[in-house]
Amino acid sequence: MSNKPKVSNAIIRRLPRYRRYLGVLQNKGIKKISSNELSEIIGYTASQIRQDFNTFGEFGQQGYGYSVDYLYKEINKILGLDREYKTVIVGVGHLGQAVANYTYYYKIGFNIMGLFDINPEKIGTTINDVEIKAFSELEDFCKSEGVDIGIICVNSEGAQEVADKLVAGGVKGIWNFAPIDLEIPKDVALESVHLSDSLHALSFMIKSMNAEQE
Amino acid sequence: MSNKPKVSNAIIRRLPRYRRYLGVLQNKGIKKISSNELSEIIGYTASQIRQDFNTFGEFGQQGYGYSVDYLYKEINKILGLDREYKTVIVGVGHLGQAVANYTYYYKIGFNIMGLFDINPEKIGTTINDVEIKAFSELEDFCKSEGVDIGIICVNSEGAQEVADKLVAGGVKGIWNFAPIDLEIPKDVALESVHLSDSLHALSFMIKSMNAEQE
Repeated sequence: MSNKPKVSNAIIRRLPRYRRYLGVLQNKGIKKISSNELSEIIGYTASQIRQDFNTFGEFGQQGYGYSVDYLYKEINKILGLDREYKTVIVGVGHLGQAVANYTYYYKIGFNIMGLFDINPEKIGTTINDVEIKAFSELEDFCKSEGVDIGIICVNSEGAQEVADKLVAGGVKGIWNFAPIDLEIPKDVALESVHLSDSLHALSFMIKSMNAEQE
Repeated sequence: MSNKPKVSNAIIRRLPRYRRYLGVLQNKGIKKISSNELSEIIGYTASQIRQDFNTFGEFGQQGYGYSVDYLYKEINKILGLDREYKTVIVGVGHLGQAVANYTYYYKIGFNIMGLFDINPEKIGTTINDVEIKAFSELEDFCKSEGVDIGIICVNSEGAQEVADKLVAGGVKGIWNFAPIDLEIPKDVALESVHLSDSLHALSFMIKSMNAEQE
């Protein structure tokens, strides 16, 4: 039991990208692809790609390449996306509502079972037919519904308390949007969305391009 | 000129993480750190860390380690965070408002100069004292204000049109939250926030932990 599964953090980052690009290829009607072609699209080296796929099984044939449909399906299984997840969102400000709408609109298999907030004016109202409940009900709700994932959309100050309640409620994973490092037990998965990392990568790219153009 | 600066995509991802963890160390009052200690916290190997820092200069002393303050400051410069950026947000639904509040609340040097939407009921209202303008004004506004970064918070269907207007308006970079691959010229930096990648990494971690516990 560990926050860090045996597979490296780097491959955890690459697998969802493979899935996303394979989905694009599927939508374009492309049936097979070589590791070299995939390398062109996704930006990892062909040998990296072959090595990644070999970690999980034999997905391709020498000289033929990979079946896009088969690979997409297999990566879905590897990622645990061949099932649905029960989730709750805690904090129904703009961010929480954006995440609720995102999961609802794109039908991605992460079903919002409950929404929680501390604002009395919001409690009892609904978003996409899901009622907003009081934060005090969170732990019991997670237990009784068997919630898999808690999504934290409160600000930095409240995030650890929310995480504690989710853990007490027995969730298996936390998707955290608050920009702080949460402390949670090692047997609960934690994925934080650090928007600043993404924005800083962008500023770095802008700076690098300017340097090249000078 | 290229969307892909000479530095590898992997290091572009690591640099903002170094910065974030160094910021945490600073807040804790920690003055110096070795590559081994940093490795423990951040999860990259010590040799990877030394190699990354060597790419950009001589930041540490053999046997002494790195000065946290100095390294933080230098990484800020490398990331282009020693200046401020003029930004606009296009699409002021929940997501756009969440991003607007995030940049406002955390004072991160990416200043929102304008907000744009197509909804007549929103146009003319304000968020954090910034007025929401009509989408039709976007290109001219970017030109006249010298906007650096356009933030796309519309849905997949409208995102390419927004990107085209931002490019025509002369932005240097686009921060895209719509889950599609945008087509933009090679001299404009593009960073897309793929929430699904993050969520799928989480489901993979949950699955990996369950497997270990069985």
